[in-house]
Amino acid sequence: MILVNGLQADSIPVDDRGLAYGDGLFETIEISHGQPLLWRRHLKRLKQGCAVLGMASYDDDVWLNDCLKLADRQEHAIIKLMLTRGSGGRGYRPDANSLGRRIVSLHSWPLYPQEHISEGVRLFKCETPVTENSRLAGLKTLCRLEQVMAQMEWQVPEFDEGLMLTADNDVIEGTRSNVFIVKNGVLLTPELKRAGIKGIMRDVIIEMATKSGMIVKEVVLDHGTFIDADEIFLCNSILKIWPVKDYLGKYYGPGACTKTLMTMVSNQLGDYE
Amino acid sequence: MILVNGLQADSIPVDDRGLAYGDGLFETIEISHGQPLLWRRHLKRLKQGCAVLGMASYDDDVWLNDCLKLADRQEHAIIKLMLTRGSGGRGYRPDANSLGRRIVSLHSWPLYPQEHISEGVRLFKCETPVTENSRLAGLKTLCRLEQVMAQMEWQVPEFDEGLMLTADNDVIEGTRSNVFIVKNGVLLTPELKRAGIKGIMRDVIIEMATKSGMIVKEVVLDHGTFIDADEIFLCNSILKIWPVKDYLGKYYGPGACTKTLMTMVSNQLGDYE
Repeated sequence: MILVNGLQADSIPVDDRGLAYGDGLFETIEISHGQPLLWRRHLKRLKQGCAVLGMASYDDDVWLNDCLKLADRQEHAIIKLMLTRGSGGRGYRPDANSLGRRIVSLHSWPLYPQEHISEGVRLFKCETPVTENSRLAGLKTLCRLEQVMAQMEWQVPEFDEGLMLTADNDVIEGTRSNVFIVKNGVLLTPELKRAGIKGIMRDVIIEMATKSGMIVKEVVLDHGTFIDADEIFLCNSILKIWPVKDYLGKYYGPGACTKTLMTMVSNQLGDYE
Repeated sequence: MILVNGLQADSIPVDDRGLAYGDGLFETIEISHGQPLLWRRHLKRLKQGCAVLGMASYDDDVWLNDCLKLADRQEHAIIKLMLTRGSGGRGYRPDANSLGRRIVSLHSWPLYPQEHISEGVRLFKCETPVTENSRLAGLKTLCRLEQVMAQMEWQVPEFDEGLMLTADNDVIEGTRSNVFIVKNGVLLTPELKRAGIKGIMRDVIIEMATKSGMIVKEVVLDHGTFIDADEIFLCNSILKIWPVKDYLGKYYGPGACTKTLMTMVSNQLGDYE
């Protein structure tokens, strides 16, 4: 089921600027027992994106109403929010008065193998580089063609996720996840100043780990340092934490620090709404 | 009027991957007396893009039929072709069997001031950097959010076009045009290995100039060299060539070499179909 500006619909006008130019943002949200998780954080990121793009959004209540309509009686599901800059003519320049179009859709909860958590996942090294743009870095915009290209590079089930790097061989993220490494007890994650999406779960893990006394650093993470990690893990709002089992033939996890963080996410996520 | 997969329509399914991820390509084509100009070149670029993205396209006849249906009796107009990877579920990985969706739309011919040609245009320096991705560079994909952001930086009619650079301050292109400079009689244009769109008119100008005996080089064009140019001009399939009148307070054109190329484009474009 899909709501377009609050009304059930299967289509959008063909002149939507999200289609024409990727001119919009999205959020992917876990629904549990009819309620969205980490809701305030998702809406906050959406609004931060709107501020950068100079786009109007909708009141929090409007988004929540849409979301709850679709989430009603869903035990476990995913809701995707999209906000485009609405309809427009040919030409990149948006109409200053253009009304955003919101698209809220319900999706079934994905079933991943239990081993992804208990044993970890196999990480592939993608050749497709991340797209670098300091102005758009961090945002979850509709321009995601490089993630599409990256995921086409490997076959499931041989690998479970792909790692994306800059042209200069710095590690940025997975195709659909953020990445952390543990080295000598310190938690390192790529800074996302030139590329990458600032994930909600990434933020939560940084806060949780810091609060528990771990040292966490956002750094330029070159590929050599990444390979030398003691532990590697991936995260996003849906899969939470996946330890990396192997990468380029080297065995990693799941390690002790990753396991501690997985337990913390399991037990404390409700405190980070 | 708009055709979606050959049928008149105002909307597309909301699960289109062009909307979700910018997963598609487009072309903007001049229609004169009911006929598309530079047609073979536009279709060739579209197919080259499909090859890079691993997308299926449609036979040339199918595209031409759509185009001619809309172009019929149009004295002067624009046709926009879009090809998306079609409908899909949540998740970046495309279905290997997904059918592309083609969207062909008719737009009125834009009326630019005559002075843009006779006196030249005022060029703005955009702060929004071009997006760098060596795998996608050159292609006219649906991911164009940085062009949208760039065009929001200045007000019309104070400036007529904006110049976009890399994070390292190399000149790449205008927001909707390619860029050339003339220095000591040599024609220089940015190579587009890491960023930018390879314009059809850019190709035509390189071929025309080379054939007429000019020296043409595709180079890394740093901003200092750009400013030191004797002449600067912009081009695309619709506006053809616009001399740059001034940039950052310095007066440039229209210069002799630019005028020669403008005459050549006026007289010989039919030979470059």
